[in-house]
Amino acid sequence: MLLENMLEYNQKFVEGDESIEKSSLYPKKNAVVLTCMEPQLDSLLRNALNLQDGDVEVIKNAGAFVSDPYDSVMRSLLIAVYERRADEVFVIGHHDCWMKDFDPKATIERMGLQGVSEESIEDFSHNKDLSKWLRGYQEISDMVKTSVNTIVNHPLLPEDTPVHGLIIDPDSGKLDVIVYGF
Amino acid sequence: MLLENMLEYNQKFVEGDESIEKSSLYPKKNAVVLTCMEPQLDSLLRNALNLQDGDVEVIKNAGAFVSDPYDSVMRSLLIAVYERRADEVFVIGHHDCWMKDFDPKATIERMGLQGVSEESIEDFSHNKDLSKWLRGYQEISDMVKTSVNTIVNHPLLPEDTPVHGLIIDPDSGKLDVIVYGF
Repeated sequence: MLLENMLEYNQKFVEGDESIEKSSLYPKKNAVVLTCMEPQLDSLLRNALNLQDGDVEVIKNAGAFVSDPYDSVMRSLLIAVYERRADEVFVIGHHDCWMKDFDPKATIERMGLQGVSEESIEDFSHNKDLSKWLRGYQEISDMVKTSVNTIVNHPLLPEDTPVHGLIIDPDSGKLDVIVYGF
Repeated sequence: MLLENMLEYNQKFVEGDESIEKSSLYPKKNAVVLTCMEPQLDSLLRNALNLQDGDVEVIKNAGAFVSDPYDSVMRSLLIAVYERRADEVFVIGHHDCWMKDFDPKATIERMGLQGVSEESIEDFSHNKDLSKWLRGYQEISDMVKTSVNTIVNHPLLPEDTPVHGLIIDPDSGKLDVIVYGF
Protein backbone atom coordinates (compact mmCIF):
# COMPACT_ATOMS: atom_id res chain seq x y z
CA MET A 1 0.00 0.00 0.00
CA LEU A 2 1.66 3.16 -1.23
CA LEU A 3 0.06 5.49 1.34
CA GLU A 4 1.77 3.81 4.28
CA ASN A 5 5.17 3.86 2.53
CA MET A 6 4.66 7.49 1.61
CA LEU A 7 3.79 8.53 5.16
CA GLU A 8 6.75 6.60 6.58
CA TYR A 9 9.14 8.21 4.09
CA ASN A 10 7.63 11.63 4.71
CA GLN A 11 8.04 11.38 8.47
CA LYS A 12 11.76 10.61 8.03
CA PHE A 13 12.07 13.45 5.53
CA VAL A 14 10.46 15.97 7.85
CA GLU A 15 12.57 14.84 10.81
CA GLY A 16 15.74 14.82 8.71
CA ASP A 17 18.11 17.61 7.88
CA GLU A 18 17.29 17.86 4.20
CA SER A 19 15.96 21.31 3.52
CA ILE A 20 13.27 22.10 0.99
CA GLU A 21 14.50 23.69 -2.17
CA LYS A 22 11.76 26.24 -2.77
CA SER A 23 10.61 26.68 -6.34
CA SER A 24 9.36 30.01 -7.54
CA LEU A 25 5.67 30.55 -6.91
CA TYR A 26 5.08 31.54 -10.51
CA PRO A 27 6.30 29.70 -13.62
CA LYS A 28 9.79 31.00 -14.39
CA LYS A 29 9.33 30.65 -18.15
CA ASN A 30 5.87 32.28 -18.22
CA ALA A 31 4.17 29.39 -19.94
CA VAL A 32 1.63 26.65 -19.34
CA VAL A 33 1.97 23.13 -20.74
CA LEU A 34 -0.89 20.67 -21.18
CA THR A 35 0.53 17.18 -21.51
CA CYS A 36 -0.23 13.52 -20.89
CA MET A 37 -0.32 11.78 -17.50
CA GLU A 38 1.81 8.83 -18.65
CA PRO A 39 4.95 8.18 -16.55
CA GLN A 40 7.21 8.13 -19.62
CA LEU A 41 6.68 11.89 -19.98
CA ASP A 42 8.11 12.72 -16.53
CA SER A 43 11.79 12.81 -17.38
CA LEU A 44 11.31 13.23 -21.13
CA LEU A 45 10.13 16.85 -20.99
CA ARG A 46 12.88 17.73 -18.56
CA ASN A 47 15.65 16.16 -20.62
CA ALA A 48 14.58 16.67 -24.21
CA LEU A 49 12.88 20.08 -23.86
CA ASN A 50 14.81 21.53 -20.93
CA LEU A 51 11.65 22.07 -18.90
CA GLN A 52 13.11 22.01 -15.40
CA ASP A 53 11.28 22.06 -12.07
CA GLY A 54 9.43 25.32 -11.61
CA ASP A 55 9.83 26.48 -15.22
CA VAL A 56 6.19 26.19 -16.30
CA GLU A 57 2.78 25.36 -14.97
CA VAL A 58 1.96 21.79 -16.01
CA ILE A 59 -1.56 20.49 -16.53
CA LYS A 60 -1.84 16.74 -17.13
CA ASN A 61 -4.60 14.37 -18.10
CA ALA A 62 -5.06 11.27 -20.25
CA GLY A 63 -3.63 12.15 -23.67
CA ALA A 64 -3.33 15.95 -23.19
CA PHE A 65 -6.88 16.04 -24.45
CA VAL A 66 -9.41 18.82 -24.01
CA SER A 67 -12.48 18.99 -26.20
CA ASP A 68 -15.00 20.63 -23.87
CA PRO A 69 -14.77 24.40 -23.28
CA TYR A 70 -16.33 23.90 -19.83
CA ASP A 71 -13.84 21.26 -18.73
CA SER A 72 -11.66 21.89 -15.65
CA VAL A 73 -8.57 21.59 -17.86
CA MET A 74 -9.77 24.63 -19.79
CA ARG A 75 -10.50 26.37 -16.47
CA SER A 76 -6.94 25.65 -15.35
CA LEU A 77 -5.49 26.98 -18.62
CA LEU A 78 -7.43 30.23 -18.24
CA ILE A 79 -6.29 30.61 -14.64
CA ALA A 80 -2.69 30.02 -15.76
CA VAL A 81 -3.01 32.70 -18.46
CA TYR A 82 -4.85 35.37 -16.45
CA GLU A 83 -3.47 34.81 -12.97
CA ARG A 84 -0.27 32.83 -13.19
CA ARG A 85 1.68 34.84 -15.75
CA ALA A 86 1.57 32.27 -18.54
CA ASP A 87 1.66 34.08 -21.86
CA GLU A 88 2.31 31.06 -24.08
CA VAL A 89 0.29 27.82 -24.18
CA PHE A 90 1.71 24.42 -25.20
CA VAL A 91 -0.21 21.24 -25.92
CA ILE A 92 2.33 18.40 -25.97
CA GLY A 93 1.12 14.98 -27.06
CA HIS A 94 3.45 12.06 -27.60
CA HIS A 95 3.97 9.04 -29.84
CA ASP A 96 3.30 5.62 -28.27
CA CYS A 97 0.50 7.19 -26.24
CA TRP A 98 -1.64 4.61 -24.56
CA MET A 99 -4.79 6.47 -25.71
CA LYS A 100 -4.08 5.56 -29.33
CA ASP A 101 -6.54 2.99 -30.65
CA PHE A 102 -7.94 2.67 -27.15
CA ASP A 103 -11.19 0.69 -27.19
CA PRO A 104 -13.65 2.09 -24.63
CA LYS A 105 -15.84 -1.03 -25.00
CA ALA A 106 -13.18 -3.18 -23.33
CA THR A 107 -13.00 -0.72 -20.44
CA ILE A 108 -16.76 -0.68 -20.02
CA GLU A 109 -16.70 -4.49 -19.94
CA ARG A 110 -13.96 -4.34 -17.31
CA MET A 111 -16.10 -2.00 -15.21
CA GLY A 112 -18.76 -4.71 -15.08
CA LEU A 113 -16.19 -7.36 -14.14
CA GLN A 114 -14.96 -5.14 -11.29
CA GLY A 115 -18.43 -4.85 -9.81
CA VAL A 116 -19.91 -1.72 -11.40
CA SER A 117 -23.61 -2.42 -11.96
CA GLU A 118 -25.43 -2.22 -15.28
CA GLU A 119 -27.61 0.40 -13.60
CA SER A 120 -24.68 2.67 -12.69
CA ILE A 121 -23.42 2.52 -16.26
CA GLU A 122 -26.88 3.32 -17.61
CA ASP A 123 -27.38 6.19 -15.14
CA PHE A 124 -24.07 7.75 -16.12
CA SER A 125 -24.77 7.25 -19.82
CA HIS A 126 -28.02 9.11 -19.44
CA ASN A 127 -26.08 12.39 -19.44
CA LYS A 128 -23.08 11.41 -21.51
CA ASP A 129 -22.32 8.78 -24.13
CA LEU A 130 -19.82 6.69 -22.15
CA SER A 131 -17.92 5.32 -25.17
CA LYS A 132 -17.58 8.77 -26.62
CA TRP A 133 -16.52 10.27 -23.29
CA LEU A 134 -13.78 7.68 -22.75
CA ARG A 135 -12.64 7.53 -26.37
CA GLY A 136 -9.03 7.70 -27.50
CA TYR A 137 -7.90 8.64 -30.98
CA GLN A 138 -6.43 7.11 -34.11
CA GLU A 139 -3.95 9.83 -35.02
CA ILE A 140 -2.09 11.66 -32.25
CA SER A 141 -1.95 14.74 -34.46
CA ASP A 142 -5.77 14.82 -34.58
CA MET A 143 -5.95 14.76 -30.80
CA VAL A 144 -3.41 17.57 -30.48
CA LYS A 145 -5.25 19.63 -33.13
CA THR A 146 -8.58 19.11 -31.36
CA SER A 147 -7.12 20.29 -28.06
CA VAL A 148 -5.44 23.32 -29.69
CA ASN A 149 -8.67 24.24 -31.48
CA THR A 150 -10.71 24.09 -28.29
CA ILE A 151 -8.20 26.36 -26.54
CA VAL A 152 -7.62 28.81 -29.42
CA ASN A 153 -11.34 29.20 -30.06
CA HIS A 154 -12.26 29.55 -26.41
CA PRO A 155 -14.29 32.73 -26.04
CA LEU A 156 -12.49 33.67 -22.81
CA LEU A 157 -8.87 33.34 -24.01
CA PRO A 158 -7.15 36.63 -24.91
CA GLU A 159 -6.99 36.65 -28.71
CA ASP A 160 -3.27 37.25 -28.95
CA THR A 161 -2.29 34.21 -26.83
CA PRO A 162 -0.08 31.83 -28.82
CA VAL A 163 -1.22 28.20 -28.53
CA HIS A 164 1.26 25.65 -29.88
CA GLY A 165 0.49 22.01 -30.72
CA LEU A 166 3.46 19.65 -30.45
CA ILE A 167 4.25 15.94 -30.51
CA ILE A 168 7.26 14.41 -28.82
CA ASP A 169 8.79 11.04 -29.64
CA PRO A 170 9.71 9.16 -26.43
CA ASP A 171 12.33 7.09 -28.30
CA SER A 172 14.38 9.89 -29.84
CA GLY A 173 13.18 12.87 -27.81
CA LYS A 174 12.42 14.70 -31.06
CA LEU A 175 9.77 17.41 -30.85
CA ASP A 176 7.58 18.14 -33.89
CA VAL A 177 5.45 21.22 -34.35
CA ILE A 178 1.90 20.41 -35.44
CA VAL A 179 0.39 23.82 -34.82
CA TYR A 180 2.67 26.87 -34.75
CA GLY A 181 0.86 29.32 -32.52
CA PHE A 182 2.46 32.62 -33.48
CA MET B 1 9.41 33.18 -26.86
CA LEU B 2 9.70 29.80 -25.22
CA LEU B 3 8.79 27.75 -28.32
CA GLU B 4 11.86 28.89 -30.25
CA ASN B 5 14.17 28.19 -27.28
CA MET B 6 12.58 24.80 -26.82
CA LEU B 7 13.00 23.82 -30.47
CA GLU B 8 16.59 24.99 -30.51
CA TYR B 9 17.40 23.04 -27.36
CA ASN B 10 15.57 20.02 -28.67
CA GLN B 11 17.49 19.97 -31.95
CA LYS B 12 20.79 19.93 -30.05
CA PHE B 13 19.46 17.23 -27.74
CA VAL B 14 18.39 15.01 -30.64
CA GLU B 15 21.71 15.52 -32.46
CA GLY B 16 23.71 14.96 -29.28
CA ASP B 17 24.91 11.77 -27.68
CA GLU B 18 22.67 11.86 -24.65
CA SER B 19 20.46 8.81 -24.70
CA ILE B 20 16.89 8.74 -23.50
CA GLU B 21 16.38 7.04 -20.18
CA LYS B 22 13.17 5.18 -20.82
CA SER B 23 10.63 5.17 -18.01
CA SER B 24 8.33 2.24 -17.56
CA LEU B 25 5.16 2.47 -19.64
CA TYR B 26 2.99 1.80 -16.60
CA PRO B 27 3.24 3.47 -13.20
CA LYS B 28 5.77 1.47 -11.16
CA LYS B 29 3.94 2.08 -7.88
CA ASN B 30 0.49 1.25 -9.28
CA ALA B 31 -1.10 4.51 -8.24
CA VAL B 32 -2.54 7.70 -9.69
CA VAL B 33 -2.04 11.12 -8.11
CA LEU B 34 -4.22 14.16 -8.73
CA THR B 35 -2.35 17.27 -7.71
CA CYS B 36 -1.99 20.98 -8.42
CA MET B 37 -0.35 22.55 -11.49
CA GLU B 38 1.73 25.03 -9.46
CA PRO B 39 5.51 24.90 -10.09
CA GLN B 40 6.31 24.60 -6.39
CA LEU B 41 4.89 21.06 -6.44
CA ASP B 42 7.34 19.78 -9.07
CA SER B 43 10.28 18.94 -6.83
CA LEU B 44 8.27 18.79 -3.60
CA LEU B 45 6.49 15.51 -4.35
CA ARG B 46 9.74 13.95 -5.51
CA ASN B 47 11.71 14.99 -2.46
CA ALA B 48 9.22 14.88 0.37
CA LEU B 49 7.12 11.91 -0.77
CA ASN B 50 9.70 9.95 -2.77
CA LEU B 51 7.56 10.00 -5.91
CA GLN B 52 10.26 9.59 -8.52
CA ASP B 53 9.94 9.79 -12.30
CA GLY B 54 7.78 6.98 -13.59
CA ASP B 55 6.44 5.94 -10.18
CA VAL B 56 2.83 7.05 -10.62
CA GLU B 57 0.48 8.53 -13.17
CA VAL B 58 0.11 12.22 -12.38
CA ILE B 59 -2.96 14.27 -13.25
CA LYS B 60 -2.63 18.00 -12.65
CA ASN B 61 -4.97 20.96 -12.74
CA ALA B 62 -5.58 24.18 -10.81
CA GLY B 63 -5.85 23.17 -7.16
CA ALA B 64 -6.20 19.38 -7.64
CA PHE B 65 -9.89 20.09 -7.89
CA VAL B 66 -12.56 17.90 -9.42
CA SER B 67 -16.21 18.50 -8.64
CA ASP B 68 -17.88 17.33 -11.84
CA PRO B 69 -18.26 13.59 -12.46
CA TYR B 70 -18.19 14.26 -16.23
CA ASP B 71 -14.96 16.25 -16.14
CA SER B 72 -11.92 15.03 -18.13
CA VAL B 73 -9.98 14.76 -14.87
CA MET B 74 -12.47 12.13 -13.71
CA ARG B 75 -12.18 10.44 -17.11
CA SER B 76 -8.39 10.34 -16.70
CA LEU B 77 -8.68 8.88 -13.19
CA LEU B 78 -10.97 6.11 -14.44
CA ILE B 79 -8.60 5.33 -17.31
CA ALA B 80 -5.71 5.19 -14.82
CA VAL B 81 -7.64 2.77 -12.60
CA TYR B 82 -9.04 0.46 -15.28
CA GLU B 83 -6.33 0.55 -17.90
CA ARG B 84 -3.13 1.79 -16.35
CA ARG B 85 -2.82 -0.49 -13.30
CA ALA B 86 -3.47 2.20 -10.68
CA ASP B 87 -5.11 0.56 -7.68
CA GLU B 88 -4.76 3.46 -5.24
CA VAL B 89 -5.91 7.06 -5.83
CA PHE B 90 -4.32 10.11 -4.17
CA VAL B 91 -5.63 13.67 -4.13
CA ILE B 92 -2.78 15.90 -2.96
CA GLY B 93 -3.56 19.54 -2.27
CA HIS B 94 -1.07 21.92 -0.72
CA HIS B 95 -0.84 24.85 1.67
CA ASP B 96 -0.09 28.26 0.12
CA CYS B 97 -2.11 27.23 -2.91
CA TRP B 98 -2.80 30.13 -5.22
CA MET B 99 -6.46 29.07 -5.46
CA LYS B 100 -7.07 29.96 -1.80
CA ASP B 101 -9.24 33.05 -1.44
CA PHE B 102 -9.03 33.51 -5.20
CA ASP B 103 -11.53 36.12 -6.37
CA PRO B 104 -13.01 35.19 -9.77
CA LYS B 105 -14.45 38.69 -10.16
CA ALA B 106 -10.95 40.16 -10.54
CA THR B 107 -10.16 37.58 -13.23
CA ILE B 108 -13.35 38.34 -15.12
CA GLU B 109 -12.44 42.02 -14.98
CA ARG B 110 -8.98 41.17 -16.29
CA MET B 111 -10.59 39.27 -19.19
CA GLY B 112 -12.31 42.48 -20.23
CA LEU B 113 -9.08 44.45 -19.96
CA GLN B 114 -7.32 41.91 -22.17
CA GLY B 115 -9.90 42.30 -24.93
CA VAL B 116 -12.52 39.64 -24.20
CA SER B 117 -15.90 41.12 -25.13
CA GLU B 118 -18.88 41.47 -22.80
CA GLU B 119 -20.73 39.32 -25.33
CA SER B 120 -18.23 36.44 -25.11
CA ILE B 121 -18.48 36.47 -21.34
CA GLU B 122 -22.28 36.48 -21.49
CA ASP B 123 -22.37 33.70 -24.10
CA PHE B 124 -20.13 31.52 -21.95
CA SER B 125 -22.12 32.30 -18.82
CA HIS B 126 -25.28 31.17 -20.53
CA ASN B 127 -24.24 27.54 -19.91
CA LYS B 128 -22.18 27.96 -16.77
CA ASP B 129 -21.98 30.50 -13.96
CA LEU B 130 -18.51 31.89 -14.68
CA SER B 131 -17.71 32.98 -11.11
CA LYS B 132 -18.73 29.59 -9.79
CA TRP B 133 -16.80 27.76 -12.50
CA LEU B 134 -13.57 29.66 -11.80
CA ARG B 135 -13.95 29.74 -8.03
CA GLY B 136 -11.21 28.84 -5.56
CA TYR B 137 -11.80 27.83 -1.96
CA GLN B 138 -11.40 29.13 1.55
CA GLU B 139 -10.13 25.99 3.25
CA ILE B 140 -7.78 23.71 1.37
CA SER B 141 -9.18 20.75 3.32
CA ASP B 142 -12.66 21.49 1.91
CA MET B 143 -11.31 21.44 -1.63
CA VAL B 144 -9.52 18.13 -1.05
CA LYS B 145 -12.64 16.63 0.56
CA THR B 146 -14.81 17.77 -2.36
CA SER B 147 -12.44 16.16 -4.86
CA VAL B 148 -12.23 12.94 -2.85
CA ASN B 149 -16.03 12.79 -2.52
CA THR B 150 -16.56 13.24 -6.25
CA ILE B 151 -14.11 10.42 -6.97
CA VAL B 152 -15.25 8.04 -4.21
CA ASN B 153 -18.90 8.47 -5.11
CA HIS B 154 -18.37 8.19 -8.84
CA PRO B 155 -20.71 5.49 -10.12
CA LEU B 156 -18.03 4.04 -12.40
CA LEU B 157 -15.20 3.64 -9.87
CA PRO B 158 -14.74 0.10 -8.49
CA GLU B 159 -16.12 0.20 -4.97
CA ASP B 160 -13.01 -1.16 -3.27
CA THR B 161 -10.64 1.49 -4.71
CA PRO B 162 -8.94 3.44 -1.90
CA VAL B 163 -9.06 7.21 -2.45
CA HIS B 164 -6.84 9.23 -0.11
CA GLY B 165 -7.07 12.96 0.52
CA LEU B 166 -3.81 14.63 1.55
CA ILE B 167 -2.34 18.08 2.09
CA ILE B 168 1.35 18.86 1.79
CA ASP B 169 3.12 21.86 3.30
CA PRO B 170 5.62 23.36 0.81
CA ASP B 171 7.64 24.88 3.65
CA SER B 172 8.28 21.79 5.76
CA GLY B 173 7.36 19.05 3.28
CA LYS B 174 5.00 17.57 5.87
CA LEU B 175 2.13 15.49 4.52
CA ASP B 176 -1.17 15.38 6.40
CA VAL B 177 -3.91 12.85 5.84
CA ILE B 178 -7.35 14.46 5.46
CA VAL B 179 -9.18 11.42 4.15
CA TYR B 180 -7.77 7.95 4.85
CA GLY B 181 -9.03 5.86 1.98
CA PHE B 182 -8.69 2.31 3.34
